[in-house]
Amino acid sequence: MNEKTRLGNFFEDFCVGQTIAHATPRTITEGDVALYTALTGSRFAMTSADTFAHSLGFPRAPVDHLLAFNIVFGKTVPDISLNAVANLGYAAGRFGHRVFAGDTLTADSTVIGVKENRDGKTGIVYVRTCGVNQHQQIALDYCRWVMVRKRDPASPAPETIVPELLDAVAVGDLIVPAGIRVDQYDCALSGSPDLWDDYQVGERIDHVDGTTIEESEHMMATRLYQNTARVHFNQHVEKAGRFGRRIVYGGYVISLARSLSFNGLANAFLVVAINGGRHVTPTFAGDTVYAWSEVLDKLILPGRNDLGALRLRTVATKDRPCADFPYKTADGGFDPSVLLDFDYTVLMPRRA
Amino acid sequence: MNEKTRLGNFFEDFCVGQTIAHATPRTITEGDVALYTALTGSRFAMTSADTFAHSLGFPRAPVDHLLAFNIVFGKTVPDISLNAVANLGYAAGRFGHRVFAGDTLTADSTVIGVKENRDGKTGIVYVRTCGVNQHQQIALDYCRWVMVRKRDPASPAPETIVPELLDAVAVGDLIVPAGIRVDQYDCALSGSPDLWDDYQVGERIDHVDGTTIEESEHMMATRLYQNTARVHFNQHVEKAGRFGRRIVYGGYVISLARSLSFNGLANAFLVVAINGGRHVTPTFAGDTVYAWSEVLDKLILPGRNDLGALRLRTVATKDRPCADFPYKTADGGFDPSVLLDFDYTVLMPRRA
Amino acid sequence: MNEKTRLGNFFEDFCVGQTIAHATPRTITEGDVALYTALTGSRFAMTSADTFAHSLGFPRAPVDHLLAFNIVFGKTVPDISLNAVANLGYAAGRFGHRVFAGDTLTADSTVIGVKENRDGKTGIVYVRTCGVNQHQQIALDYCRWVMVRKRDPASPAPETIVPELLDAVAVGDLIVPAGIRVDQYDCALSGSPDLWDDYQVGERIDHVDGTTIEESEHMMATRLYQNTARVHFNQHVEKAGRFGRRIVYGGYVISLARSLSFNGLANAFLVVAINGGRHVTPTFAGDTVYAWSEVLDKLILPGRNDLGALRLRTVATKDRPCADFPYKTADGGFDPSVLLDFDYTVLMPRRA
Repeated sequence: MNEKTRLGNFFEDFCVGQTIAHATPRTITEGDVALYTALTGSRFAMTSADTFAHSLGFPRAPVDHLLAFNIVFGKTVPDISLNAVANLGYAAGRFGHRVFAGDTLTADSTVIGVKENRDGKTGIVYVRTCGVNQHQQIALDYCRWVMVRKRDPASPAPETIVPELLDAVAVGDLIVPAGIRVDQYDCALSGSPDLWDDYQVGERIDHVDGTTIEESEHMMATRLYQNTARVHFNQHVEKAGRFGRRIVYGGYVISLARSLSFNGLANAFLVVAINGGRHVTPTFAGDTVYAWSEVLDKLILPGRNDLGALRLRTVATKDRPCADFPYKTADGGFDPSVLLDFDYTVLMPRRA
Repeated sequence: MNEKTRLGNFFEDFCVGQTIAHATPRTITEGDVALYTALTGSRFAMTSADTFAHSLGFPRAPVDHLLAFNIVFGKTVPDISLNAVANLGYAAGRFGHRVFAGDTLTADSTVIGVKENRDGKTGIVYVRTCGVNQHQQIALDYCRWVMVRKRDPASPAPETIVPELLDAVAVGDLIVPAGIRVDQYDCALSGSPDLWDDYQVGERIDHVDGTTIEESEHMMATRLYQNTARVHFNQHVEKAGRFGRRIVYGGYVISLARSLSFNGLANAFLVVAINGGRHVTPTFAGDTVYAWSEVLDKLILPGRNDLGALRLRTVATKDRPCADFPYKTADGGFDPSVLLDFDYTVLMPRRA
Repeated sequence: MNEKTRLGNFFEDFCVGQTIAHATPRTITEGDVALYTALTGSRFAMTSADTFAHSLGFPRAPVDHLLAFNIVFGKTVPDISLNAVANLGYAAGRFGHRVFAGDTLTADSTVIGVKENRDGKTGIVYVRTCGVNQHQQIALDYCRWVMVRKRDPASPAPETIVPELLDAVAVGDLIVPAGIRVDQYDCALSGSPDLWDDYQVGERIDHVDGTTIEESEHMMATRLYQNTARVHFNQHVEKAGRFGRRIVYGGYVISLARSLSFNGLANAFLVVAINGGRHVTPTFAGDTVYAWSEVLDKLILPGRNDLGALRLRTVATKDRPCADFPYKTADGGFDPSVLLDFDYTVLMPRRA
């Protein structure tokens, strides 16, 4: 192995307070947007059409929030999670400045917690990752924690620091894009008459459709994000691994679940926060992904009576339709079909 | 099943004269064009190069007509054909204003006919679909008819109305793009010396090449078009369905046939009409698509001696080379290899 | 077979001095760039981000050199290698004017050598191919030689002319982009601290990662390049062919090897020459591609003390990690895992 080759950081390489600037800045283009549509089937009007975005006060169609998220996430992989055993969770994710085709995103991550596991072979690393555009405006930031291998089990454990992470982004911390307006919002074009007022806390929605993942689709998406985690790409190694095959990048499953959620949540046009998320079970090529959502909370935005927020849980399953909303079993564990448990906040127009 | 989830219209939901505005306007970009090239292999010079398009009087390369057609078609699916049993035919399709990257297409469909089938379980719905750009200029319109399930077999049959649809778009109804000129048309760059004058009515052309379809290719194309028909995407359901597997969207086969037709029809640079079309047999991943064409008619365009029109039949087959032009058998049915029977009109330069 | 269908040139059709203008000019767009990223995983900062390119003196991100190469190569296939038995080698390849999204490439090839093989059934054709932009500036030119079938074994052999091709492009012939500067070169963003000074002649670098190729990936790449060689696309024919399956286009393997080489050669930001290249063994879907590189030479650029050149050999293998640098065996033949032996020259910043 040559010293010029980078093999990623191990648990010992992380210390709280450290900031890592990630490589490969990325100009997002209309090409990325088209691929995102082709790979996820997203149909939200605001990100699909300049005209619709213009009616909302944007100069043209912003880039899908989850495309931006996945691109920022991808940059962090060579530094944060190349030696990760598991991607454990997300919290405190906020979307700030809208991203448009032509913007260039760079990212850095600050270590906000470390905790060695009892086995002495791995530890949990908590980072806050920030993605900024070419004007150093924050496009998104979020926390995630991963279980990372130690280089040497004999190395001493660091002081445990576990950051306090809230269950959800507080309504006062949500960033509503400047200048956004919904007085011309067109429900025929958006695909649904159901607005914020029509959703109730506790309401559950089956998104009905299912989509089967192919190897080339998840690999193309993951390469588009310049995510280098080898479990997604290398069948020669993975055939002898834990699962005998490549694992689908979790962010691709998030995108598929969000795209499926159009059928029932078509007016959830802006994702403003990622409150939490868990990849419950690995996804593989050949799996058919279904999804359902639950309204966890309805939030009133200060100073806006035209827009409201919904906190949603979207659950993705494999090979299991969601008419009966599969989630947890009697013993508190997840139903074996559940791939993803994703908690996020969206904006929707309110009735006048 | 939740009331917020849309399950598509059934036969009873359609009545003649009704116009349905379809959701999700779509800005077509250079990203869509690149994907179209990657998914179909199209090589027509006008849609491949700004320089070539400029020599024809266009500001830059127009978007492939069939890409625009498929995107407009995709919008109609959630409203028109989500509960369709079969996509029966096309007629009276015309391409109007050229579509360029940056244009936003929206679509609506007007019901022009309904006819309940004898079994009382399904009926045929005829619609005229119109796709317009952001200036409300018509990019294309076409008729199609589909067999749609009834929600309730007991509901009464509507009055039968079957629209009169001509065999072909009349030459006087073809739209020749304003300002188009072919005095600098370069046959070295276009890929063939054969012009309008060189084709004879009745002439048949084997396009020689074949291309094998993969699952991810047809699904990416179909998602790019935001077509949501579940038979294309959901292996979990389809494995128990009629064919045991996903069905390739017919519009993808049309695009492949048109791309294959380059070899023999390289100067058929503009598609101006879809006279008719039939998806004879379903296409599946793993099928290798071949194509051949017949010149059905040569049309002189009023006021133009530099351009002529050819009415073509392009037939696509599966796993069957087309040197002997497979089409119909002695009993009048289609050869079992035939996937597509497509009747359309193209423009070609004439010899000076 | 119809006379309007083009079946490609045979050995008899080539004569030294002849220049063939290739069809289908091609405007490269941001869509092509996004697909290239999705299909290869390229992470070089200069081609990924306008901001990084701008810091180097470019107006925005140039198109990856190998994307331009593959697009130019694709144009030559219908004329040069449709009836080729083998693509034997490359030499004397130089990259000139940077290519940006929006540029249109056209290509021609001049026959510079012919040599009939002893079997009388095939011959070797040597061509120099030149790709130019819309201003007739040379984007790249290169020589390649292919073994092409004769139409008729009885046709007489032409006079043998074999061009003299140097082992490598001389340093004085390398084209350093005008205006390029590296005084703001950012090694955190580029992904590696290792600059020209840090590499030694003879040094070998294992690029560690491997990526498995799917059928749809190599076909999408090859169609994006409008390369029509049927062995890449037609499983119906190839299942009865030499290998029983489709062959991956060699240029896709070159791109994958270059992308893998990022891990160890992240600052090799400009490819300036292709000195030679050999597709040792066919690549198929399902193969996992690994790569390693050797520094063949370090070249000082006249008049530049901020930039240096490295001549590299990058070797791609299948299903074989490269920690021990598999290349040739004791008998002088290639290790059976070797797919590609690629000799090229890159630029890297030097330490101030």
